[in-house]
Amino acid sequence: MLEYRDFEEKTIKRTEIFKGKIIDVYLDDVALPMGGTAKRELVLHNGGVGIIPITKENKLVMVKQFRKPLEKVVLEIPAGKIDPGEGKEPIKTAVRELEEETGYHAETLTYVNEMYLSPGFSNEKLYIYAAADLEKVEHPLPQDEDEVLELYELTLAEAKQAILDGLICDAKTIFAVQYWELMQAKQGEDHT
Amino acid sequence: MLEYRDFEEKTIKRTEIFKGKIIDVYLDDVALPMGGTAKRELVLHNGGVGIIPITKENKLVMVKQFRKPLEKVVLEIPAGKIDPGEGKEPIKTAVRELEEETGYHAETLTYVNEMYLSPGFSNEKLYIYAAADLEKVEHPLPQDEDEVLELYELTLAEAKQAILDGLICDAKTIFAVQYWELMQAKQGEDHT
Repeated sequence: MLEYRDFEEKTIKRTEIFKGKIIDVYLDDVALPMGGTAKRELVLHNGGVGIIPITKENKLVMVKQFRKPLEKVVLEIPAGKIDPGEGKEPIKTAVRELEEETGYHAETLTYVNEMYLSPGFSNEKLYIYAAADLEKVEHPLPQDEDEVLELYELTLAEAKQAILDGLICDAKTIFAVQYWELMQAKQGEDHT
Repeated sequence: MLEYRDFEEKTIKRTEIFKGKIIDVYLDDVALPMGGTAKRELVLHNGGVGIIPITKENKLVMVKQFRKPLEKVVLEIPAGKIDPGEGKEPIKTAVRELEEETGYHAETLTYVNEMYLSPGFSNEKLYIYAAADLEKVEHPLPQDEDEVLELYELTLAEAKQAILDGLICDAKTIFAVQYWELMQAKQGEDHT
């Protein structure tokens, strides 16, 4: 079994390429554990949250929006970037983003897990929460100014069809639908 | 219900920031559908594949490797970038990467789905395949020169524990373990 030092790539030099609003880009020269060097392209990101909100009617609340990198309109679970100051408590981001994007407040917000989305080049991490006991907020937080969002509430069968149709096509949302299906399968087992 | 034109953000100007080996970075000025403009940071990527290889002993084949953006060693399902020329047939990438990274050839390779990993800023898409009926290749394709990989074969219970321990921590692998669990739950249902 290999030790950490057999894997580690130490940075010799880091070159700043770009500092943006959402991402920072760096190019590292690293020393390889077996000798020699290599370049590593790095996209640093402050992380975000994704929320799996299930209504009392057992529907998944989703947002439709345009994604510039994909040049298309897609259906996703509510999600958003962690603001500076929320870093230690991503659940606060989850509460805020759920209300901003959907107008819902969740009485129950449960941590599901956390996942790096693209570990080959990025440190972007997403914290996933399941939201239940949803109540419409009377005067919800306003949506981001530069975002057009449309709300949908889908049954599990509709969400699975939307994956087949390509309207649901991103990792966190496909994970969320699968998570929901697994929870229902497990509940089914309990009842037998 | 909103139309496509109510969502679309048209590029007014695209600025090239970086052209790398794995990613290209651009900054777009876009015209917003409700008027006004905004900046969009874009990381373009050629896409990749992830493979869920289950052995005849019902274990998941995984690779341990160092990920520079995370500065840690993690366990992932075998995966890799689509080479130019493989673009139209990602299943070829899956066959090649499985052999390079694990020394296994899969008699059965089944398309599971495809997912954009980080649609907020990147077009990176991953095609997921389930691999079964695995056979060790006598003289497998060599691993990439600048990668140190260590192979593991985990039971479902071990994989779920590795998620709790943070050793499995990326979206495609967490998705894969959950997919495996769901398949087993469904098989269980069939048997009752």
